[in-house]
Amino acid sequence: MAKVRNILFIMCDQLRRDYLSCYGHPTLPTPNIDTLAAKGTRFTRAYVQGPVCGPSRMSSYTGRYVSSHGATWNFVPLSVQIPTLGDYMRSAGLSTAVIGKTHVLPDLTGLQRMGLNASEGLGLRLAEGGFDPYARHDGIIPDSKAKISQPLYNQYLQKNGYDALNPWHDFANAAFDDQGQLQSGWSMRNAHLPARVHESHSETAWCTDQALQFIQTQGESPWCLHLSYIKPHWPYIAPAPYHQRFDAQDIKAAVRSDSERTNTHPVYKAFRNHVESQSFAQQRVRERVIPTYMGLVQQIDDHIGRLMAGLQSQGRLQDTLIVFTSDHGDMLGDHWLGEKEMFYEASAGVPLMIVDPSQPQQVSVCDALVEAIDLIPTFMDALGEPTEHQWLEGRSLVPCLQQTEVGREAVFSELDYAFYPAAKELHLPVNEARATMVRTQRWKLVDYQGFAPQLFDMQEDPNELSDLGQSAEHASLRADLRDLIQQWRKALRTRTSMSDAQADLLAARRNAMKDIVIGQW
Amino acid sequence: MAKVRNILFIMCDQLRRDYLSCYGHPTLPTPNIDTLAAKGTRFTRAYVQGPVCGPSRMSSYTGRYVSSHGATWNFVPLSVQIPTLGDYMRSAGLSTAVIGKTHVLPDLTGLQRMGLNASEGLGLRLAEGGFDPYARHDGIIPDSKAKISQPLYNQYLQKNGYDALNPWHDFANAAFDDQGQLQSGWSMRNAHLPARVHESHSETAWCTDQALQFIQTQGESPWCLHLSYIKPHWPYIAPAPYHQRFDAQDIKAAVRSDSERTNTHPVYKAFRNHVESQSFAQQRVRERVIPTYMGLVQQIDDHIGRLMAGLQSQGRLQDTLIVFTSDHGDMLGDHWLGEKEMFYEASAGVPLMIVDPSQPQQVSVCDALVEAIDLIPTFMDALGEPTEHQWLEGRSLVPCLQQTEVGREAVFSELDYAFYPAAKELHLPVNEARATMVRTQRWKLVDYQGFAPQLFDMQEDPNELSDLGQSAEHASLRADLRDLIQQWRKALRTRTSMSDAQADLLAARRNAMKDIVIGQW
Repeated sequence: MAKVRNILFIMCDQLRRDYLSCYGHPTLPTPNIDTLAAKGTRFTRAYVQGPVCGPSRMSSYTGRYVSSHGATWNFVPLSVQIPTLGDYMRSAGLSTAVIGKTHVLPDLTGLQRMGLNASEGLGLRLAEGGFDPYARHDGIIPDSKAKISQPLYNQYLQKNGYDALNPWHDFANAAFDDQGQLQSGWSMRNAHLPARVHESHSETAWCTDQALQFIQTQGESPWCLHLSYIKPHWPYIAPAPYHQRFDAQDIKAAVRSDSERTNTHPVYKAFRNHVESQSFAQQRVRERVIPTYMGLVQQIDDHIGRLMAGLQSQGRLQDTLIVFTSDHGDMLGDHWLGEKEMFYEASAGVPLMIVDPSQPQQVSVCDALVEAIDLIPTFMDALGEPTEHQWLEGRSLVPCLQQTEVGREAVFSELDYAFYPAAKELHLPVNEARATMVRTQRWKLVDYQGFAPQLFDMQEDPNELSDLGQSAEHASLRADLRDLIQQWRKALRTRTSMSDAQADLLAARRNAMKDIVIGQW
Repeated sequence: MAKVRNILFIMCDQLRRDYLSCYGHPTLPTPNIDTLAAKGTRFTRAYVQGPVCGPSRMSSYTGRYVSSHGATWNFVPLSVQIPTLGDYMRSAGLSTAVIGKTHVLPDLTGLQRMGLNASEGLGLRLAEGGFDPYARHDGIIPDSKAKISQPLYNQYLQKNGYDALNPWHDFANAAFDDQGQLQSGWSMRNAHLPARVHESHSETAWCTDQALQFIQTQGESPWCLHLSYIKPHWPYIAPAPYHQRFDAQDIKAAVRSDSERTNTHPVYKAFRNHVESQSFAQQRVRERVIPTYMGLVQQIDDHIGRLMAGLQSQGRLQDTLIVFTSDHGDMLGDHWLGEKEMFYEASAGVPLMIVDPSQPQQVSVCDALVEAIDLIPTFMDALGEPTEHQWLEGRSLVPCLQQTEVGREAVFSELDYAFYPAAKELHLPVNEARATMVRTQRWKLVDYQGFAPQLFDMQEDPNELSDLGQSAEHASLRADLRDLIQQWRKALRTRTSMSDAQADLLAARRNAMKDIVIGQW
């Protein structure tokens, strides 16, 4: 078997774990992704460190929990000091590239402190979160952004004849309705219309084209490609024919109960009041939006097929570790919620599969509790590089691929909802809107700053419909789970300016110190 | 009243709170420091964030708890990313200087990541923890260091005729015994002998000379001087006449009980086994060392008098905020311990007094619970600068000077003892030797990773002789105090790449977003 030389790290955005047929979706075939799963190991209990794009991705890219990297929400910059995937891969001798979305915001204050310029050289790389930009495209392009500097994908559309100041918005995110009127993808009522962009020019197709081109260009040189599809993230609008692949009859029933609507947990209730939750509470919204969401997933699946064919023809299937995952899910009306943010399985749980060509006997399914921060240590391990880094808080999943390890006792995920209408409704100051999830094999507890927790029995109530957060008989269990959170928080890696190996050496030297004498008579 | 324009931040090293006469020492007059206390506010319950030089100082210099700055022990570098006292003062328009000890270690890995060189320009300043070096002297000079590059204080001694490769060691830390034999200050048995250095060339005198010179040079330009005496830190050896100012009859009785020797708390017991604890457990050691420790304190007091006279003659008493404190105490045999590290009052509690010339009606004594991280916000506040900084975890003590505020509910201090013989004795890995102290007005709890806590009733047992860490009747109290630690840890400032004001603005913008539409039908 060839040694792993390349890393293909595929991430979708807002893709729910249960919207792939290999994870059991009854009406949405995803044969190419299923083939990946069949060749490798499929993880059934993988969680992201925060069910929101920015914080989740910063955890995947740094190998640190959200509290440890500090980019607690989408528009909080990633501190320039923290090494990222790009840095680790580069130090392992791989060329690194990003295609698609990273959501990394430059830490301009940190760069300024270091005398660096975000627009060139080292400063640019640090501003890009340690990645070498290749074809970054963060997905959503507001007109205000297009006016300042034209993103690569807009340039691509313009070159292909889509004539507009902001072709992303006017073509990829727009459609003509039955009356020939131009409609915006921003309104979910238009989700059934075909986007004005040709499928072959859509974001998913473009990202795949770029990936195939990058891989071909690399030839025999080792590489790490982060292929980061921005779909099926909203706006929910798909190019033909994917806009009509599915219809209302194909959608799964919402996971929700009437009793949840009377649940007065202040944070859950405030999130139920969000616009998107009010929308997805309506069945007509689900019936119009979810078929399109499914179409966007199937489109990705088709392009994964194209990508794999390309890898095969380049001879890269033999020496490339392939990871397929998502940055979080989408509530789609489950629990009367839209978007993500909260810690239900539809949101904090993600698909994850890993194909390691150097391991012919991979376990097909792994039920261990694993986390997004485990990816960097996994890549390092697969490449045969040492994983002992003072910044990394995850651990390699390579042993899970061989089933020599059963994963950790618990996984953790965090939310800073200071920036949401929910926090406004609850009158919370910007530093007092935090929540932490701990999930063990049996239980899931969400600990809210200043509010009662939520507790779910994942064995007896896998749909998370019955909140035991205030149940008297579960009080000591809740205390134990909160203690787990406390132990976890205590163990976060804060001594980051020194590796464990250096610390061991320092301890040995302190204990054998000769030229400084302490306390001897 | 003149506005505060300058900051004089005086720190002693290893000075116990109760070894000043203003804090009640019965036989050690410190009239000059007492005068400072009388002119300003004396804090009776000030605590350092970690009772070890490095971590304590890094908290004072960054305004962050030890878990938040990550320099958990003496030889763990301070991450280059964190703004420090020097940065805050410089941004307020003051020139900044350090005289004496900082214990800042350059974060060479961090500097390299930023493409910076630790030996010049911005890199040098960052390597110095954001301070502009003036006359740094970290105190202890091993021969190995003197061989590589000669510290400033050694150069000074050499210029003044102390002829040696390492005059610090051969003169300031050496003495002739009664038989004319050269003895080293490293052995505590020699503590009663006069150091070979003339008092006027001793470290305390030299630091004071440098301070007077700096202040004079500044003229009317605003400045912040961190005058950081390295005494009464060991080696315990004093120049004449301070070596014989006190004798065995002048020392206070040790605060300890026989029952403590049977206390089997694993960590406390392991620290009792340290060499310095075994030494200070002996009365003959206390009788020889403590008089010299007292002499070193009195020497500082004399130089504080000289410094204040200099300030007065320069007209600087009117516009200079003066702070006098210490980085931690010294067990000196109390509780059968030497050194510091553990969280007894003799170690984690420190003297603190603040003289604010713009406030004629200062409260003379303040019993509020205050912390070393409060100093930077205090300086900023006194200078009239905004204190809203995302990195700062302390709060201004200026309101305490006017008694409009009673301080916080609890203070916190931390220890990473991975590097000590105690950790070796307990077979602890380098990431599993942490302890956290919480102190309220009534209670002090020390929470040890992996071991039972210690608990003291500071009202009924102010000498901390009776450990209630395992008492059944205090179980729910301990749970409450551990919960306080949990709440505190949760609230540590991790979102450091954005200020609260920016976060407020971001939340408002998110809630009024126009060009990105989420979840609307």
